[in-house]
Order: sequence, then C-alpha cells, then structure tokens
Amino acid sequence: MKTRLNLALLGLLVLRASAGVLDNRVDQYGSDAAKGVDSCTVPDSLVQEIKGYQPIVNKIVSKIVGGEFAGKTWDSLAELVDTFGARLSGSEQLEKSIDYVQEQMKLDGLENVHTEDAPVPHWVRGYESAQLVAPFKKNLPLLGLGTTVGTPRGGIIADVVAVESFEEFETLKPEQVKGKIVVFVPQWEGYGKTVVYRSKGASVASRKGAVATLIRSVTPFSIGSPHTGGQDYDEGVNKIPSACITVEDAEMILRKYRRGETITIHLEMDDRNFEPFVSRNTIGELVGTTYTNSSVVVVSGHLDSWDVGVGAMDDGGGALISWKALTYLKAMGLRPRRTIRAILWTGEELGLWGGKAYKDAHKENEKKEFNFFFESDIGTFEPRGLDFTGNKDAECVFREVVKLMTPLNATQFETPSDGGPDISHWTSRGFPGASLMNKNEKYFWFHHSAGDSMAVEDPKNLDKCTALWAAAAYVIADLSISIPKYVSD
Amino acid sequence: MKTRLNLALLGLLVLRASAGVLDNRVDQYGSDAAKGVDSCTVPDSLVQEIKGYQPIVNKIVSKIVGGEFAGKTWDSLAELVDTFGARLSGSEQLEKSIDYVQEQMKLDGLENVHTEDAPVPHWVRGYESAQLVAPFKKNLPLLGLGTTVGTPRGGIIADVVAVESFEEFETLKPEQVKGKIVVFVPQWEGYGKTVVYRSKGASVASRKGAVATLIRSVTPFSIGSPHTGGQDYDEGVNKIPSACITVEDAEMILRKYRRGETITIHLEMDDRNFEPFVSRNTIGELVGTTYTNSSVVVVSGHLDSWDVGVGAMDDGGGALISWKALTYLKAMGLRPRRTIRAILWTGEELGLWGGKAYKDAHKENEKKEFNFFFESDIGTFEPRGLDFTGNKDAECVFREVVKLMTPLNATQFETPSDGGPDISHWTSRGFPGASLMNKNEKYFWFHHSAGDSMAVEDPKNLDKCTALWAAAAYVIADLSISIPKYVSD
Repeated sequence: MKTRLNLALLGLLVLRASAGVLDNRVDQYGSDAAKGVDSCTVPDSLVQEIKGYQPIVNKIVSKIVGGEFAGKTWDSLAELVDTFGARLSGSEQLEKSIDYVQEQMKLDGLENVHTEDAPVPHWVRGYESAQLVAPFKKNLPLLGLGTTVGTPRGGIIADVVAVESFEEFETLKPEQVKGKIVVFVPQWEGYGKTVVYRSKGASVASRKGAVATLIRSVTPFSIGSPHTGGQDYDEGVNKIPSACITVEDAEMILRKYRRGETITIHLEMDDRNFEPFVSRNTIGELVGTTYTNSSVVVVSGHLDSWDVGVGAMDDGGGALISWKALTYLKAMGLRPRRTIRAILWTGEELGLWGGKAYKDAHKENEKKEFNFFFESDIGTFEPRGLDFTGNKDAECVFREVVKLMTPLNATQFETPSDGGPDISHWTSRGFPGASLMNKNEKYFWFHHSAGDSMAVEDPKNLDKCTALWAAAAYVIADLSISIPKYVSD
Repeated sequence: MKTRLNLALLGLLVLRASAGVLDNRVDQYGSDAAKGVDSCTVPDSLVQEIKGYQPIVNKIVSKIVGGEFAGKTWDSLAELVDTFGARLSGSEQLEKSIDYVQEQMKLDGLENVHTEDAPVPHWVRGYESAQLVAPFKKNLPLLGLGTTVGTPRGGIIADVVAVESFEEFETLKPEQVKGKIVVFVPQWEGYGKTVVYRSKGASVASRKGAVATLIRSVTPFSIGSPHTGGQDYDEGVNKIPSACITVEDAEMILRKYRRGETITIHLEMDDRNFEPFVSRNTIGELVGTTYTNSSVVVVSGHLDSWDVGVGAMDDGGGALISWKALTYLKAMGLRPRRTIRAILWTGEELGLWGGKAYKDAHKENEKKEFNFFFESDIGTFEPRGLDFTGNKDAECVFREVVKLMTPLNATQFETPSDGGPDISHWTSRGFPGASLMNKNEKYFWFHHSAGDSMAVEDPKNLDKCTALWAAAAYVIADLSISIPKYVSD
C-alpha cells in the first residue's frame, strides 16, 4: 500500500453525479444514490439467487480453510519471498519474481497467463548513513525515501532544526533554516494525516533553504526500525535528500533541540534516480463459461514491494490470495459465468504505475471489459468482511453477497472503501470495487520496514482471506446480472 | 538485565539451610522456613506497627504520583539518556554519565555521594555487516554479542548450516559443520530457556569447526531489529565471531536451508576485546537518624547499558527510581531510622561486575552493614507489587509491608524473586532482597535493541514505580526491627 494520500489525490470518492450506465437487469429495481442501507430495494428474486450460493461458499471455505488447500497459500507466499526477497520497482528481483509467478500460474492451470508492460520509476537505494556527531556520537538508523536524491560524496554535516509540525515550521524564518537539516517529528495521528510529513517534508523544508530533511517514521509503534515510503518534490524546489529515522531517535532529537542543545548530524546518502524502467503486470485467468473477455471480475494485489523487509505483508499477501483464489477455484472445478482475472500489479509503491498503465492500455473498451474490481492491499490478517466503493445499486447487491461470508465470520461491510489504491484508477471513475477488511490494527507497525516479513503472516488467516476472496469473486462473477456501474463517457 | 541464566548460575535460590543470623527482635516469633503463607506468625504488635505506616505511604504516593514530583522522574531519565546516550561498560559515555549522576545527586541533597571502583570488561563493537550473497543479495541487520571476537579483515564468506535447536545440531557430523556459518533459529520459549543459544551458541558451533555463528535474536516479537546481549566462550574452544540477526531473517534462512538451498553469507565484524577498564558504582544516601553505616537498606539499578538504544528501560528506569526515591524522601523531610543507600551499579550487562566488586569491597563487615537489598532491573512499567528472596521470617514481615501499597494498586507478592541480578551477590547467600514486579510483558520486545528508548517509559508509570520504591524502602528502613537474614559465616 502506498499512501492514503494517493487515494485522496486520485479521487477515491465515487463520482456518483456522473452520467450512469446501467447494464442488464439492474434498472428493474431503480437507483437512488442518496438512499440509506435500509432503503435497498434489491428484488427478492435476486436476494434469493444470491442466498442460493451459500452451499458453494461453504464448500469453498471448507476446502481452503480446513481441506486440501489449508496452509498452502502461506507456503507459496513464503517460497516467493524467501526466493526473491524484496521486489522494488526497477529491480532484477522484481522481474525475476514476475517470471516465476507466471510459470507457477501456468503450473497451477490458470488460463491466459501473460504479462503486460508498465513503465515504472527506477530509484535505487545506495549507501545510507546518519550519525549524530554532537553532542554525542550515535548511529541513527535511517531509510531514504523513494525518489529522494543523495547527498554529495562524503555527505553533509549540518546542525539541526527540529519541529513537531508544519505549523511550527511556518513560524521559523528562512535564516533559521538555511543550511540546516530539518527534522520533522510529527505525532502519529493516523496514517492519512501523518504521512504528509514523509511525502512533502523535503519540499516544505527546501523552500526555506534546508539542506536535507529527516522525518520521524510514519508508524504508531516502533522497536528501533526506520520505515521508508514514497515522497515527491514539488515543481521547482531544490531537491534535497529526504529520509525517515526511527521514532526513538526523532523524539530524542526533538527533546534535545527544545532544551536548546546544538545538535549536529553527518548525513550521507548515495540514493539515485535512473531512467524509467519497463516492468510488467502479471495476469492469469479463470475464463468464464459464458463471457470471456467482457464483464470481467478482477482480483488483485501488487507484486512489487519496498526494498526493505521482503514485502510479505505489503503486498505479498494480497497478491497471493488473488492468484491462489483462482488456483483453488479451478482445482475445485468451479468455473463461473464471467471470467475472473487475477492481476498482480507492478510499480505500486512508487506511485500506482502498474494500475495506471493497465488502465491506459484497456481504456477504449473498459466499460464493456470490466464488471467489478477487488484489491487487497491493507493486510491479510484475520478477515472481517469487505468494504465497497460504488453506486448505491451496486452497493445493495454487494451487501447481499457479503452476507454469505458467515462461515468465515467475515460479514462486516463498510462504504466507501478504505483500501484499493491500484483499483482506484477505476473506482474513482464509477466502476464498483471492494477491498479486504481485516484485523489490521498492527499493519503500520510493520509497513515499509524490515519487519514486513513472513512473521507477520499467519497461515490460517491467509487461508481465510483466500477463501473470502475466492468466494466473493466467484459469486460476483457467476450472478445472473453484472454489477451496475455509473461511468461517464 | 543481563540474563536469567546468570541468575541461575549465581545460585539465586536462597540458601535456607545455612546457619542463620537473627538480629534484633525477630527471634521473638520463631522461624520456620518450611511454613507456608498461612503459617506466618508475625507478632500482632509488628503487624500493627507496619500498618501504622499507611499514612506515610499514602503521603509518599500522593506527592510522587499526583503532587510536586509528578513527571519529574521521566524528565530526569530523559535528560540522562538524551545527554549521554548508550552507556556500555568501558565507554567514555558511561563514565561521563557517572560523573553527571554524582553531581546531580549532590544537587538533589543526597548524602555521602561518591563512587567506588569496579573493574569491568572492555569490549567495543566495530563495523559489523552481514550480507546474504546467495541465492539473492540481502542485507542482514546484525549485532555482535558482548565479548565476541571479530572476523579477519575483509570478513568471512561461507555457506550456512541452519538448525532450530542444539539437539538438532547434535545430529550433524563435524564434516557437515566445518568451515560453515552456523545459524541457530530457536523458537522463543521464554528468555531463560532461549537465551542459552545466544550465550553458548558460539562455543557449541565452534566445537564442530564452524567459522562463525548467527543466532535468532532472543525476543518473542520483532519489527526487524536485532537484539544484542552477552555471550562467553567455553574454556579452550576456538573463539569464533558470534552475533544475533533478526527473527525475520533467521526464520527465512531456516526455511530456505530446509528446502535444500545453498545459502551463502558474507560476514564482517570488527568487534574487539581490550584490557579490563576500571569503572565505578555510583552511590548516594539518605543517612538514617539512628543507624548510619549499619543495617543499610540498599535500593539499586544499573547505570551501564548496551551500546544500542539508549538503555532507558534496561536499566535507566531502575537506576532513576532508586536515585529519585531518595531525592523525594529527602525533599519531603522523611528520614528513616536506618540509612537508605542508592547504588547505581556499573558493568552489569557484561557480567554483574559492579555488584561483584562492591560485594568484595564490603565483604568483611557485610552482615552488620546490610539489612535489605532492593533492585529494579526488569522494567519500570506499571508496578504490580514486589517479589522477594529470603528466609521465611523475613518473607512474613515483608508480606505485611507489601500490603501497604494499596494506593498504588501494587500489592502483589511473589517468592522467590524473578529479578535482581546484581543483588544476587547477596540474596544468593541469605540476605533478604526484593525486586520490582511490573507489567513488563513487553520487556523483551525492546530488550538489548535499538528499541530501548524513552518511548518505552511512561511518566505516570515511572512515578508509580518511584513511589513504590520510596515507600517500601522507607518502611523497611524505619521499622523497629531489622529484617532477619540467615547468612553463613
């Protein structure tokens, strides 16, 4: 998962006012985006039809959680991340893992397995070091932020200005900041609110003449690990090095600065930006019995990761459940009317590049091609249910589908969705989509850090998430109607 | 805190069979080490006397937790660790912090403030790097273990043998191990049981010809940080480099090894052992009204720390509450009959050296000099009560004292003590002592890692621990009797 900021920028809120396109039978029971939950008017025949899928859902759950597939998703994820490690955009490891997944999808019997090109940024972390040199010597573990520039060779030695917020920084005069390293130490106020210091700290500090910026890692809890993530420079600002340091060190520096101490840091970073690189989205299908390349149900997660940890959580889990949902449905002989397409996005972490390329390539015929988008990118802990983004008519149908997830104790429903950065390329324009709600309260403890490993993933929870994914995708893909979408022309 | 292994080695179990020495009035109510809780026969007059301290305990609690001293212990601890950082035995930072604490104790009005010499090991962490070089490249964060030797310049490149346990390692032939880096990946089974891999892994691996050993960090929970700690080489073994890697990386290596992959690591460590260094225990007193240098009540924690993190938890908190308990009692005008002596041990982490030197220096007259030993070295989270090591008579009296801690909701009692490594130099020989029980379930998450910082310490909890410490020490030091001890001659 990149940032909720991206979601906001991409306009996650559904464009309900857009001219609508209803397909199939949905117009039979009318639409009213302003209606509440209670006002859903799904025709009883459709409600009954959806209820009729309960035995199939039960079978899917039983096979994946307690049957022959139990534990296999965790094993496959472990083999992927143990074999290739971290999979940063532009890296050989990501491309090797794409080749590997393609081969494995074929071995699993998935259909139309292929890749589609997507240009991605190519940024490489080099040697990185930050040393507190005064008032005492201390190594400051750090992680440069994606797209950051490096320091000159030999690094920068500069005094520190430390602030808790942009508001506090605003009170400083440029002569207080010029030539300094600015340390931003925001309190954690949730990811969406706090991440702006990571994504915009360098630009804000640069405008007053700072030579570098170090930011408190964007996490509510720390055991001494820095967390990386994306950042970008505003147009026209002098590009300065930008990295996250640990919560512990950032808070220490702020206390010392506020006591009036002179704090000096030696910062050296050899991070570099290269020309964009052509990576690939990885695609496999379970082709529908009735529709093949139209009204497709997409299940997805991203295969790329940050270059620290091994990306088992972000987003190995989401990628694996999308891939394996198809593997297990196929093995069970369950083939729905519409095609279910697993897409393992590339280039998500550096800015949703895989999704963007796929959207552009499939733009011309997209209203016909796509029915529904699933994405899992906020953890694969124990599932709670599904959250949804889309028009009211689609929501009402989807609510009925979620009710089928009783055997997984995963019937919670929320709207709009809190996840789904890659599919926001579509959901932000009126296509319906859903994200996996799970017990991810600790997600940001591990996010973009060395802690993103198999230790975060639990075999049983991964089974449950895969079962939920497979069951929901199967039902949506097999219903007598397509899910209504309101997409402007 | 060093290790529970040390506690065991030092014979924490009370030598109850030793010839006893009863002082003052304790023999009035008999002794029976075999008696259970219910069989305590503390004379009613003494029970009533102890109950009579409730108003003083209430006052101490109210001043420290809710009054003029609230929050001050956290502030002082922050100033200490922010100013000097980590305080490893043999380091300039430790000696500077000892000078600083002495000065501050004097400013606080403590009496007989001085230091006493203690020889400590002098081991220095140098450049440390571990790289997985095959099957893919990955940095493996690591921390060399205290007293480990380094590698030759340029490091070692060797294939890996990975095992989960010493039992599994026993099944390997020397020719399978010779020239290899042995990776021990024990499951967490509690600190006392699991730490043997850290303390003895190098010796075990060396005997079969390993060239180095890397051990899963000794912690139940990880976010990508390695944990250091002590180790020692058995007599006569070839000394090989020994370090801990993260839980995440250790488990990955074990999985890969079990799949039959060849794993190669480039390990470079420039850690070195130097001649022992003379450090100092730091001492301050609140001199008793009746007894000055006899029947002393010791409150203690260690001032040295590991060289990662800043030792706010291990054991800055224990050191500070011991020092500040005296500061606040003095400021409140509360001076008990016996002297309360705060001792901030040095050289604890590398083997309880401060306590040993102090024991040796005070040996001749120790039975007269000491009445009771408190030590806090297993966290200063929210206090639960006090645990105790000593003879049954002393235990019965102490149980009554613990009952006074109702205003802190800290009346739990356990015996024998689970903490107190430095005071085990005395408690293992029949002197009575106590350790601070606290809600330290997450202690080992941070222990000996970059996570040992002020972020672990909560101001309110530190206040409560200080109040508990001050109140318990005051009552013990002021009672009409000394606490009975059974120490052989």
